[in-house]
Amino acid sequence: MNLTATTLFGGLNEADVLTRLRAVSAVTGDSTAEDAAEVFARVAFSGIAEPGDRMAGMLLTALGANGALDALIRRCDPERIMGLMGQTAGGAALGIAFDEELVQLISAGLERWAPRLNAREAVAHLERAARFDTVLLTPAHAFWPQGLDDLGLHAPHVLWARGTPELLATLPRSIAVVGARASTGYGEHVTMEAAAGLVDRGVTVVSGAAYGIDGMAHRSALASGGNTVAFLAGGVDRFYPSGHDALLHRIVASGVVLSELPCGASPTKWRFLQRNRLIAAASAATVVIEAGWRSGSLNTAGHASALGRPLGVVPGPVTSASSAGCHRLLRETDAILVTTAAEMFELLSLDIAPPARERDEQEDPEERRVMDALSLRTPRSAEDIARRAGLSVMQVQSVLGLCELTGRAVGGDKGWRRHGGSDPQKGG
Amino acid sequence: MNLTATTLFGGLNEADVLTRLRAVSAVTGDSTAEDAAEVFARVAFSGIAEPGDRMAGMLLTALGANGALDALIRRCDPERIMGLMGQTAGGAALGIAFDEELVQLISAGLERWAPRLNAREAVAHLERAARFDTVLLTPAHAFWPQGLDDLGLHAPHVLWARGTPELLATLPRSIAVVGARASTGYGEHVTMEAAAGLVDRGVTVVSGAAYGIDGMAHRSALASGGNTVAFLAGGVDRFYPSGHDALLHRIVASGVVLSELPCGASPTKWRFLQRNRLIAAASAATVVIEAGWRSGSLNTAGHASALGRPLGVVPGPVTSASSAGCHRLLRETDAILVTTAAEMFELLSLDIAPPARERDEQEDPEERRVMDALSLRTPRSAEDIARRAGLSVMQVQSVLGLCELTGRAVGGDKGWRRHGGSDPQKGG
Repeated sequence: MNLTATTLFGGLNEADVLTRLRAVSAVTGDSTAEDAAEVFARVAFSGIAEPGDRMAGMLLTALGANGALDALIRRCDPERIMGLMGQTAGGAALGIAFDEELVQLISAGLERWAPRLNAREAVAHLERAARFDTVLLTPAHAFWPQGLDDLGLHAPHVLWARGTPELLATLPRSIAVVGARASTGYGEHVTMEAAAGLVDRGVTVVSGAAYGIDGMAHRSALASGGNTVAFLAGGVDRFYPSGHDALLHRIVASGVVLSELPCGASPTKWRFLQRNRLIAAASAATVVIEAGWRSGSLNTAGHASALGRPLGVVPGPVTSASSAGCHRLLRETDAILVTTAAEMFELLSLDIAPPARERDEQEDPEERRVMDALSLRTPRSAEDIARRAGLSVMQVQSVLGLCELTGRAVGGDKGWRRHGGSDPQKGG
Repeated sequence: MNLTATTLFGGLNEADVLTRLRAVSAVTGDSTAEDAAEVFARVAFSGIAEPGDRMAGMLLTALGANGALDALIRRCDPERIMGLMGQTAGGAALGIAFDEELVQLISAGLERWAPRLNAREAVAHLERAARFDTVLLTPAHAFWPQGLDDLGLHAPHVLWARGTPELLATLPRSIAVVGARASTGYGEHVTMEAAAGLVDRGVTVVSGAAYGIDGMAHRSALASGGNTVAFLAGGVDRFYPSGHDALLHRIVASGVVLSELPCGASPTKWRFLQRNRLIAAASAATVVIEAGWRSGSLNTAGHASALGRPLGVVPGPVTSASSAGCHRLLRETDAILVTTAAEMFELLSLDIAPPARERDEQEDPEERRVMDALSLRTPRSAEDIARRAGLSVMQVQSVLGLCELTGRAVGGDKGWRRHGGSDPQKGG
């Protein structure tokens, strides 16, 4: 029996864990208790670490999810955890050896995760998922999108799926069709034709269910009787944007809606950006149709390029702000100009080598997450913000100090508020 | 005195030649008779050889224009001409040595040029040029566009200029703005903004005076008080297209209108294609704004790339046939996507290496020239066609045989006519 971490954590017994997992996942009666504990620990991590948390990825790679959770619950110190990591095959593969910097990273991780180390939450994820007919997938699952493995330490720990997860087997022949929320009639027309033409060629259309191009891509794929997959930035229990509730229900009915975040999780700017990496990694190629100069689609495009996935871009009138980001991609990157579904389809037969260096981060991720956790009206304590942002209290305090200096946050007796400007846009 | 060829040819005396040349050219009282004979022989060649005739280029490089004309008038045999060519510095630079293939090329050239070896024509060119205030430029002239030298053996022998040839000194800071005759409101708007923005940056706008994008480029440059240069496919005495007569007169008034063909020469499809090489070579960079899938602008773009000139292309809606050629260039070549005058201006500071191999010819040039020389209604003799096409009678007969087989020409008692379809479009 290896349910130590799980049982310690949730005060659950083995039978309880298996019952809850069976309600949502591919864990069957044949699964060992070890399997179940590992899956449950992954579920816990999907609520503990923010998407794309590299240190969490290292920890799980070295210790397994159950081992990692065990170390967290036992409040092992960073040196001890590094020692454990160095003894495993996974840790050896990562080249773990004594390293002061790594100790610091582990230490920062522990502080970041501690505020969320809550057994009730993990159980609630499972209960809520079961209520919404949500299926839990792990990397061991047959339908797990193999492309996500290319994300390495940034890969998601689990996926929560509504609809027909069997369709994920078609992802090796899929194209992500993404673009601006502020689309034009031109962009929508091109998207409609593109998605329909791709469906005609047996291609699964992946997108982010946002307003504008994303929504049109899903709609056109559905209208053509094709397969379509939507990745959300929050839990699959509450659909965002709300105006796409009906559309997302239709995708559930004949396609798949996915998220790496557990049911109940709300979408944040950070999660939108991380969601984009899943779209790029799960698809065999990405096509951007209309994007403003700073569109979130450029982020998806950047992930696709960094992963060595072919990137197609549809041009538009140079007089249209909604195509400015597309033209920027065509000028500044190796993106391929595409004008028809046939040309998009050709992207699937391209063999592109990933670039040597990783994409530059354009924004400090911690600051982004702290800003997401602040409210314009309600003051919040540093502890509350730390829990919401998935960061340590110390990190939050340091970031808040900086944000106060630059005028983006304001502190008072009752806590911290966001300052100035409107609510941050939810970037698709 | 070295006027042998000229005097033999035209039955002119030295004073006559100088007087006629002074009326149209930079040949002044200080020029030697040798200079004058050379210039006059170049004038003759601009009527004898079709634009871009590589063998004529070799002959003039090796023997000088006067020497080459002399050899033609004396009806030297090909071996003798090759021997003469091998003895000069120019010939040595070309690596002329005994070569059966070269003898064949010279022989073919002699047959091609013989039907046009007409002294009255050369004199008529000068007289007609004088009537139209046309200035004659040779490569020795201060305002000769240096970029044309990159054409090597395909360089023009002379340029005939109306307007202000001094403006040609600005060509190192010029951009060719070309595009479809069948332009849209979008393309015209972008062209207007582009040419105005380039003029604001002190750039001379070069184009071909065709309907559509070309005309708009000239108009916008003129409206912004900028310099503009138009290259025509026929003589500068009769403006083509006739609907641009007023525009071309305005270009003459404040810019320059140029042609390598003498006054009186009519534009043919072949000459349009060759004119495009002058636009590309004379300009420091080329920008294509709207082009159909088979637009003549793609020909200009091909010349620019082959010459190592930066090539910018403006995208448009993928739903617009008028942008299909632009998107084709962006997909199939190293052309740079440009959206604003500022980005076009940046092309001037790019350093681009010419590609190793020459551009493929997409059409047999002899066939093109024979088809140009045929009429749909009036039957013409092979001799007449040879003179019009600048080819030998034997070549013409061989091409006509082929064209009859493919149904493009039909022969009869009274001669040859073009068969089927409409008149060939004058490609801009």
